[in-house]
Amino acid sequence: MIYRTHYCGTLGEAEIGQKVVLAGWVQRRRDHGGLIFVDLRDREGLVQVVFSPDTDPEAFAVAEKVRSEYVLRVEGEVHRRPPGTENPKLKTGTIEVRATSCTILNPSRTPPFYIEDGINVDEDLRLRYRYLDLRRPEMQEALRLRHRAAKVVRDYLDAHGFWEVETPMLTRSTPEGARDYLVPSRIYPGRFYALPQSPQLFKQLLMVAGVDRYFQIVRCFRDEDLRADRQPEFTQIDLEMSFVEVEDILRLSEGLIATLCREIVGVEVSLPFPRISYQEAMSLYGTDRPDIRYDLLLTDVSDLVAEVEFKVFSQAVKEGGCVKGLAVPGAANFSRKEIDELTRLAALFGAKGLAYIQLLPEGPKSPILKFLGEGVVEALRQRLQAGEGALLLFVADKREVVERSLGALRSYLAQKLGLEKPGLSFVWVVDFPLVEFDPAEGRYVTLHHPFTAPREEDVPLLETEPEKVRAKAYDLVLNGVELGGGSIRINRRDLQEKVFRLIGLDLEEARDKFGFLLEALEYGAPPHGGIAFGFDRLLMLLLGRQTIRDVIPFPKTQRAQDLLTQAPSPVTEEQLRELHLRVEVAKGSSGIVKKLS
Amino acid sequence: MIYRTHYCGTLGEAEIGQKVVLAGWVQRRRDHGGLIFVDLRDREGLVQVVFSPDTDPEAFAVAEKVRSEYVLRVEGEVHRRPPGTENPKLKTGTIEVRATSCTILNPSRTPPFYIEDGINVDEDLRLRYRYLDLRRPEMQEALRLRHRAAKVVRDYLDAHGFWEVETPMLTRSTPEGARDYLVPSRIYPGRFYALPQSPQLFKQLLMVAGVDRYFQIVRCFRDEDLRADRQPEFTQIDLEMSFVEVEDILRLSEGLIATLCREIVGVEVSLPFPRISYQEAMSLYGTDRPDIRYDLLLTDVSDLVAEVEFKVFSQAVKEGGCVKGLAVPGAANFSRKEIDELTRLAALFGAKGLAYIQLLPEGPKSPILKFLGEGVVEALRQRLQAGEGALLLFVADKREVVERSLGALRSYLAQKLGLEKPGLSFVWVVDFPLVEFDPAEGRYVTLHHPFTAPREEDVPLLETEPEKVRAKAYDLVLNGVELGGGSIRINRRDLQEKVFRLIGLDLEEARDKFGFLLEALEYGAPPHGGIAFGFDRLLMLLLGRQTIRDVIPFPKTQRAQDLLTQAPSPVTEEQLRELHLRVEVAKGSSGIVKKLS
Repeated sequence: MIYRTHYCGTLGEAEIGQKVVLAGWVQRRRDHGGLIFVDLRDREGLVQVVFSPDTDPEAFAVAEKVRSEYVLRVEGEVHRRPPGTENPKLKTGTIEVRATSCTILNPSRTPPFYIEDGINVDEDLRLRYRYLDLRRPEMQEALRLRHRAAKVVRDYLDAHGFWEVETPMLTRSTPEGARDYLVPSRIYPGRFYALPQSPQLFKQLLMVAGVDRYFQIVRCFRDEDLRADRQPEFTQIDLEMSFVEVEDILRLSEGLIATLCREIVGVEVSLPFPRISYQEAMSLYGTDRPDIRYDLLLTDVSDLVAEVEFKVFSQAVKEGGCVKGLAVPGAANFSRKEIDELTRLAALFGAKGLAYIQLLPEGPKSPILKFLGEGVVEALRQRLQAGEGALLLFVADKREVVERSLGALRSYLAQKLGLEKPGLSFVWVVDFPLVEFDPAEGRYVTLHHPFTAPREEDVPLLETEPEKVRAKAYDLVLNGVELGGGSIRINRRDLQEKVFRLIGLDLEEARDKFGFLLEALEYGAPPHGGIAFGFDRLLMLLLGRQTIRDVIPFPKTQRAQDLLTQAPSPVTEEQLRELHLRVEVAKGSSGIVKKLS
Repeated sequence: MIYRTHYCGTLGEAEIGQKVVLAGWVQRRRDHGGLIFVDLRDREGLVQVVFSPDTDPEAFAVAEKVRSEYVLRVEGEVHRRPPGTENPKLKTGTIEVRATSCTILNPSRTPPFYIEDGINVDEDLRLRYRYLDLRRPEMQEALRLRHRAAKVVRDYLDAHGFWEVETPMLTRSTPEGARDYLVPSRIYPGRFYALPQSPQLFKQLLMVAGVDRYFQIVRCFRDEDLRADRQPEFTQIDLEMSFVEVEDILRLSEGLIATLCREIVGVEVSLPFPRISYQEAMSLYGTDRPDIRYDLLLTDVSDLVAEVEFKVFSQAVKEGGCVKGLAVPGAANFSRKEIDELTRLAALFGAKGLAYIQLLPEGPKSPILKFLGEGVVEALRQRLQAGEGALLLFVADKREVVERSLGALRSYLAQKLGLEKPGLSFVWVVDFPLVEFDPAEGRYVTLHHPFTAPREEDVPLLETEPEKVRAKAYDLVLNGVELGGGSIRINRRDLQEKVFRLIGLDLEEARDKFGFLLEALEYGAPPHGGIAFGFDRLLMLLLGRQTIRDVIPFPKTQRAQDLLTQAPSPVTEEQLRELHLRVEVAKGSSGIVKKLS
């Protein structure tokens, strides 16, 4: 039996007069004027099928039984629709198929939600019935474009001499950064594999192996508390190159991203992407993920307020901190409540207060006006290049607090005021510090990972002022979201050991965990570096979706559950015994332990 | 700095006179006639670099320090080699690069084995230093062709309307078939994810979701005792189609495989592949993975020996078994020892004995000659179409024992005598039984998996003679190795529940494990089916390697260890506590528990 000759959604006037066989799902059935109209749906779209009791009574009798989401096989002939009945909203809206035969391949229960775009349904219900949710056109589009995007990436990298090389999923646990997912070994009691957080070490070993250009579209795993829009398993575009400098990797990446934008959403982005140093990003945007779709830059005014009566300002400057301001055009008439909201947000990021000046038509207005003096207020206005109608905001504190809180205000205000220009704004953040001091851990930690190379000229600082060492690291930011990051790697054992020591890994520990890497660096490791992009996030941004769950075929919830198959699930005693494990819930062991919903 | 302008291995006469920059590894250094010759190697091959103390003393001074596997950057000019010094074995053998500058980018310790093909080194050492092993040309070729093969598969399936859709790695444990690898959940104490043995259920759900044509090159996991050439993690080419019959899937698969053979090894295979039913394969080849590169068919001779004096034969026939023979040309003069070896092999497969007749120039010779009689011996010879010089082998027993043991002899003898024709011999095995009775488990088990559809005309037999029900299942066999298999799936809940019951899954259990599938089948599941191919095995056979480990970048040992990173490894108490687990090795719990080597 032939199930079909055409996809429903691709029929058109070219097929008028042809006999066709279709197979698909009933989107809608209407009975009208003694006829039955069925909108039949498949992956490619809808077509109207007409059943007549006069010409084809048997097909009509079958059609009388069909309901939404029934699976049908239909034979019929393609006709031009009668004048006046065309549907311009439908790709196939000028034609219809007059059924001569119809078979119900499978009936369907009534779905728990409509199979159409823009439904307002609890996401849990969509995830529980993901196979129905994925029938909706916007989800089909996400699947189709995800496939297409992966294809574009592979074609591009293949054409640039990259080999896709598969790295292991069952690997060694090296807890550093995020928490590993572990996999107990049955053969070796008490030993575990770990699922990779990324193929970092393996791709470096592939460079040592002479592969020269490696890539992989690869699943990675992090057992983190799923704040924000994260998933326990996610997909990366991961690549690594030998005999390159930072410049080579940025240029290659830009070509890749530009090709994706062109092929997937038809957008031409201009190259090269702008670059900004980490210092500058923090200073101007208050974040290392600057959203450059709007200005609203942070401006240092410390020099202007160093001597003012307003102690919050002058004291901060005196104590080595700073005062920075933000001019928000058109926000001068914010209500008390709106300004309180801003103050609350700044406080979340550690600011002890938020000073403001409203540039009203009748003149500047502010509770601190009198402590600043007219001259200073005017100087501030000029420094911030603000005109009438603007709201000036100031935070005075240690530099990090000032930048972080004003950065948060900046992005909040841009959204609130709709300042984001449409489109895709890429920016490279470069020259990250290699390490920063983590007071909680009482040690230096790396901003990227411990395999990142310092700039040659900064290497001597490793022993004297490590926080001043700049890394050969870079992040790509799109519309304020970090899309990916990478670095040139360390390729000499002595330097790698020095960095391990710097971050508090003693030699024995380093050799136990990373001995194979240290050893590999002694056998002719070439200069190399690479980058990894979050594939889910990239797709989310390109397709304009609200969450990465809308571009992942079978995502988990924010609480790491698969609502469709009900994973994780209990296992049998026998399975545990084979793995030499016993479940043991320590009393009050963890606040995050919750009952399965 | 520019690290290179050309790959070493791609230089040729076209570049003569050009200045080039190369980067790569020292394959070999020779000092000869006052000059230093370095064979420099990169991914693309070797080129000879010449250092002269007269023209470029600085470069020469650097070259004096280099040793094998040092990483160099070399500037120089391409010259034609002096007449008589060409190396015809080398792609770049007519040219050389005269170095004007040389930098050691990284030195190297002396590698533990030679970086060249055909080395005779313990595999454990190769795996421990995989990054050096992968530098060898034959391993580079494996990586390159693995990449190329994956690309060919993706291009082919994309062109045929398939979407690559990613399915979850953290999924639900449904122990059926092989053992699952488990991943403990931190958030839900006592609950576990399982790594997928295959994306079977998810790909079926994608068909219910209307994806129509799905594929994925995907990692799968089985925690099995690694007899034979298996890996804990392996890669499948997995695909599924809606609205298709067996025929459609076989045709699509043949196109895919033929394209791979053409693109990867330049072999044109003729289509369609031959097909053989399971019954016929067992009867003629004694296996469901027939190697059709040679004949040596099993021949039933029960009727000829039903009445002979030789009780082993006549008794077997009387008791409902059979007697089958194999004629091995040119083996009549096998020694006593060789025949004993055959008998031992047959015994491994349950045969209680092996009868034989040697067709020597002076006439047939056999210990059982007198119990058969001259007429029967001649009839046997004719039935087996055997001439002088052949060795006739017979097993008498239950049909399964006869076929299995003669099947094993068949393949052993073909190898011993070199009967395998060169090339790639594909064959489809079709019409598998849906179930067979497993005496050990005391229940029916499925030959493929419980989602395989029975042939419509056999459905009524499900309740009366289940072992006679034929499945819509098929396996692809290449040179006697199973490359892949698949089936049309059940797409109705009632039939799926019937098959679950048949294999002893009670309704509650079935709904607990597979409730989501059963439910999905009620929401308009289309007719669908698919297939999965073992990517590692396919590559191994195409590239003519001895083990799948030679086509996997970072394989585990037969004992599931990663010798490079030393996984599995112990983890911290803290990690275990977070997962609510305690390691507990039951005394004498398992014979397979071994110390980590």
